[in-house]
Amino acid sequence: MAASVEFYFDFSSPYAYLATAEVDAVAARHHRTVTWRPILLGAIMKETGARPLAEIPLKGDYMRRDVPRAARLLKLPFRWPAVFPFAAIAASRAFYWLDGRDQTKAKLFARALFKAYFGDGRDVSAPEAVAEIASHVGADKAQVLAALQDAAVKERLKTETEAAKAKGVFGSPFFFVDGEPFWGHDRLADVDRWLAKGGW
Amino acid sequence: MAASVEFYFDFSSPYAYLATAEVDAVAARHHRTVTWRPILLGAIMKETGARPLAEIPLKGDYMRRDVPRAARLLKLPFRWPAVFPFAAIAASRAFYWLDGRDQTKAKLFARALFKAYFGDGRDVSAPEAVAEIASHVGADKAQVLAALQDAAVKERLKTETEAAKAKGVFGSPFFFVDGEPFWGHDRLADVDRWLAKGGW
Repeated sequence: MAASVEFYFDFSSPYAYLATAEVDAVAARHHRTVTWRPILLGAIMKETGARPLAEIPLKGDYMRRDVPRAARLLKLPFRWPAVFPFAAIAASRAFYWLDGRDQTKAKLFARALFKAYFGDGRDVSAPEAVAEIASHVGADKAQVLAALQDAAVKERLKTETEAAKAKGVFGSPFFFVDGEPFWGHDRLADVDRWLAKGGW
Repeated sequence: MAASVEFYFDFSSPYAYLATAEVDAVAARHHRTVTWRPILLGAIMKETGARPLAEIPLKGDYMRRDVPRAARLLKLPFRWPAVFPFAAIAASRAFYWLDGRDQTKAKLFARALFKAYFGDGRDVSAPEAVAEIASHVGADKAQVLAALQDAAVKERLKTETEAAKAKGVFGSPFFFVDGEPFWGHDRLADVDRWLAKGGW
C-alpha cells in the first residue's frame, strides 16, 4: 500500500485550518490516506528565529485579510479567535492520546478542535476546553484530563515535534509526499500534482 | 479601461522570477495589462525585521529545493546564481529609466535581467552587466550607465519602494488586483480567480 501523506501542523495555525478543508480529499483522489501530526511550532521557531505572523509588521496585516478571504473561497466557517495565537499543548497532547487508541477518532477530534477555535473563535487553550471537545467524539472527559499529564503522552508530542524539525518542518501546514516537502496550504495543488505524477 | 494588475518584485527574488512565467498571461486572459514595479525589498525588510530566506535555518533549505522544483514545473530555465541574493540597485534604476521612455522596453529588459540572473546564473549586480543586458533590448550602454547616477532615476526607485511599503508590500512577488493584495507566486491562481469573479 502506498505511503500516507504526512500533514504536520500547529493547532494555532490558521493556514493549517484552511488545509483541513482539502487535504484528505486531495490524498483520497490518489487512493492515499493522510497522517495528521500536530506539533508545537513555537519550539521549532526558536531555532529558525521566526516570529508569529501576527506580530510582523505588514505581514500580520496581510494575514488578517488573507485568511478570512481564503476561508470564504473554501466556504469554510471562519472567525478570528479572541485569543490568538494560543499554546496548543493540551490540544496536541489530547490528539496523541486519542491517536494511540483510535486514529479516526483522533482526526475527528482535530477537526472539532480546529472548528471550535477558527470556526467559532472559542478559546481552546485550557485543558477543560480540550476535554470538552474530545468528549464530543466519544472520549471520556476525566480520562482526557488525566492523559494531558501522562508522561508518555508528553513525550510523544516532544518526539513528534523533534522528528518534524529533523525532517525540515519550519512552518504550518507542512506536507510530505513520499518524502517530498511542501509548505503552505496554497501548495495543496502541488501535493495533488505530485501524487498524480509521482514527481516532475 | 480596467486597471492594470500591479506586480511588485525584487530582481533578487527567485519567486518573482517564477511569477514572470505567468503573470502577463494571467492578466491577459481577463483583458488586463500588468504594471511591473521593481523595488528594493531590503529597505522594507529593515522595517519588518525579516531576513533573506536563504539565511533562515530549515526555510533556506526548503527554498533551495522548492525553487528549482517550481521552475521545472513551469519549464522555466533555472540555475542558482553564483552571487545570491544580490543588491538590485543598478538593475532597478535601469528599469525605471527605461520605463520613463518605453514601458514595453522596460519590461523586456526586466525579463532579460531575470533570465540572465536566474536562468543562466550570471552575476548582474555591476552597472556594466546591467547596461550590457539593457543594450540587448535596444538601449545605449553609455546612456544606461549615466542614467544609473541620475538623481531623478534614483528618486523614482526610492519613491516606488516607499509607495509599495505604504500599500503593505512586504515580500516578493506581490500583486494588487483592483487594490486587493496577493503575496507569492503561488497565489497567481487566486489573482486569476479574483480577475474572473471580481472578488468573492
